[in-house]
Amino acid sequence: MASSVTRPTRDVTRDDVARLAGVSSAVVSYVVNDGPRPVAEATRLRVQEAIEKLGYRPNAAARALITGRSDLIGLIVPDIRNPYFAALAQAAEEAARARSVNLVLAQGTTGSLQPLVESLTGHRVAGIITATIPEPEAVAVIVRNRIPLVRLSLAMPSDGPAIWPDYAGGARSAVRHLVEVHGHRRVALVIGSDHPDWPDEPSDGREQGWRDALEDAGLTTEHLIRVHWSAAGGREAAHRLLAEHPAATAVFASSDQQAIGLIAGLQAAGTSLPDDIAIASFDGSPDAEFTVPPLTTVDVPLAAMAADAIGEVLGIPRTNRTYPARLVLRRSCGCNPA
Amino acid sequence: MASSVTRPTRDVTRDDVARLAGVSSAVVSYVVNDGPRPVAEATRLRVQEAIEKLGYRPNAAARALITGRSDLIGLIVPDIRNPYFAALAQAAEEAARARSVNLVLAQGTTGSLQPLVESLTGHRVAGIITATIPEPEAVAVIVRNRIPLVRLSLAMPSDGPAIWPDYAGGARSAVRHLVEVHGHRRVALVIGSDHPDWPDEPSDGREQGWRDALEDAGLTTEHLIRVHWSAAGGREAAHRLLAEHPAATAVFASSDQQAIGLIAGLQAAGTSLPDDIAIASFDGSPDAEFTVPPLTTVDVPLAAMAADAIGEVLGIPRTNRTYPARLVLRRSCGCNPA
Repeated sequence: MASSVTRPTRDVTRDDVARLAGVSSAVVSYVVNDGPRPVAEATRLRVQEAIEKLGYRPNAAARALITGRSDLIGLIVPDIRNPYFAALAQAAEEAARARSVNLVLAQGTTGSLQPLVESLTGHRVAGIITATIPEPEAVAVIVRNRIPLVRLSLAMPSDGPAIWPDYAGGARSAVRHLVEVHGHRRVALVIGSDHPDWPDEPSDGREQGWRDALEDAGLTTEHLIRVHWSAAGGREAAHRLLAEHPAATAVFASSDQQAIGLIAGLQAAGTSLPDDIAIASFDGSPDAEFTVPPLTTVDVPLAAMAADAIGEVLGIPRTNRTYPARLVLRRSCGCNPA
Repeated sequence: MASSVTRPTRDVTRDDVARLAGVSSAVVSYVVNDGPRPVAEATRLRVQEAIEKLGYRPNAAARALITGRSDLIGLIVPDIRNPYFAALAQAAEEAARARSVNLVLAQGTTGSLQPLVESLTGHRVAGIITATIPEPEAVAVIVRNRIPLVRLSLAMPSDGPAIWPDYAGGARSAVRHLVEVHGHRRVALVIGSDHPDWPDEPSDGREQGWRDALEDAGLTTEHLIRVHWSAAGGREAAHRLLAEHPAATAVFASSDQQAIGLIAGLQAAGTSLPDDIAIASFDGSPDAEFTVPPLTTVDVPLAAMAADAIGEVLGIPRTNRTYPARLVLRRSCGCNPA
């Protein structure tokens, strides 16, 4: 293979660029980092030509040291194996790439975030996005290090930037559909709580939306089952539904994972779906399409949420202020779309 | 709240540590980075005490600049929404944390990895682990930057370190089970191909294991369906199975996602599972437990694979040389475990 071309046999350095452009190494740094000193336009062009010609890629670590910021963004999720958070991570990774930053993935549940956050701050991350509700100690580390924090979860106004879907509106539309279109009078709620130790946590809009829809129709809100936000939790809910709430004819499950476990548990017990029990759910994760019967679910605009979270961290104004959640009809609710 | 304690109001610097320990700032750096110059034991202890007392955390960017290495490891997967890769990412994240390194998540398919890899090398990552088969151009970037590369996929011996489960043995055990225990004579294979443009890719052990088990039993290998490695691919396979392979009474699906789509597609067509068609699959992903019927699948030792991949990148000898895959029996194959 010809070896006469530009491919370098060692890393190209800032000094190489400086030499070719006929400037000092410091000037190259000013161009690369857009400061701290101004550079004349003609000089800037000469440096950029030299960078391109030599294939110089400034070391990200060096750039982080100079600017005090890296092009890394930390994303914290409670459980990447949950398809909802996997889809969120995917959306965030794509949004990050569109902004030429990289995503550091960290997994942690409420109460265990402090060491994670310390590790991320050690990298001078440009910001932290968390879908896990952080404990106060973890927030203190972030604040002390002056790192932008964006929550992808319910939060109080005092918590700073937070992005979440229209939980209440989405839940209301699903429950209304079960009541108004399919005529159910007793609709159970299956909902989770990951953090029983955080009583101050804002109440989940999904529960409120379920209550609102039933109360508006003059129906009972007595059928409430609290289990883990997981398929295993949903399977447990199936047993409790059959044993403790035999009068319920429909269920609104607060996550697709809970609905998947609910379907497995109900079918194992010989329940016919949606004839004996109709189901609607919340998340809009990809696997909702492949349950038997396919799952009617409230689809969350993850791509928009993730893009705005990445933008917020980088100081870019948000595209959206609200994140409407849209009911997608399949067969589990009793509908019969193609 | 009392503010007389040790919590700093600004970041503690290396100079602060040097001052308290009575050494030069360079000596602090030698202790933190374990070199490049030796430090007397008594001095090292004094520095470590000062570090602890002040709560000094060396800036990861600075450390990366000094050592030429960060404590970041890049993980590349084709699709984080696929529960198999989500479980892999989770296992890698846990293994990384156990080694006090962080995981940078990147998504990319074969043919598109070069820009990702360039971005990761810019961070002087300590290594790259890829579950996506990298194209030669991407490998060239990694090699040129002298960054350790570990493949979590099939590879040629010349490709360097690679970790993959016993695909052939796992597939063989699943197909043997369908043949020997449940008496099937016509077992179809559903398998994918992500990278039709890479004809040199080593052949997938799952296909070989399926062939071996059937040929050992003197049975036909004529029922082969090639679709995408996804639930949508599996649903397409259901239609093709019913239309083109009506004699097949059992299927070995090469991924749980394909099996999930297959189950959805077959049930939608009125097929009774496992009575009309028995199914076994490969991956052992968590959602295999929640299909209807629950999925018999070959469980892959992801935690061991991920831990060894992280170790390999860091130059730690591997714990395992092989990664046996174990058949987990549920109801989709015709078994009836509790």
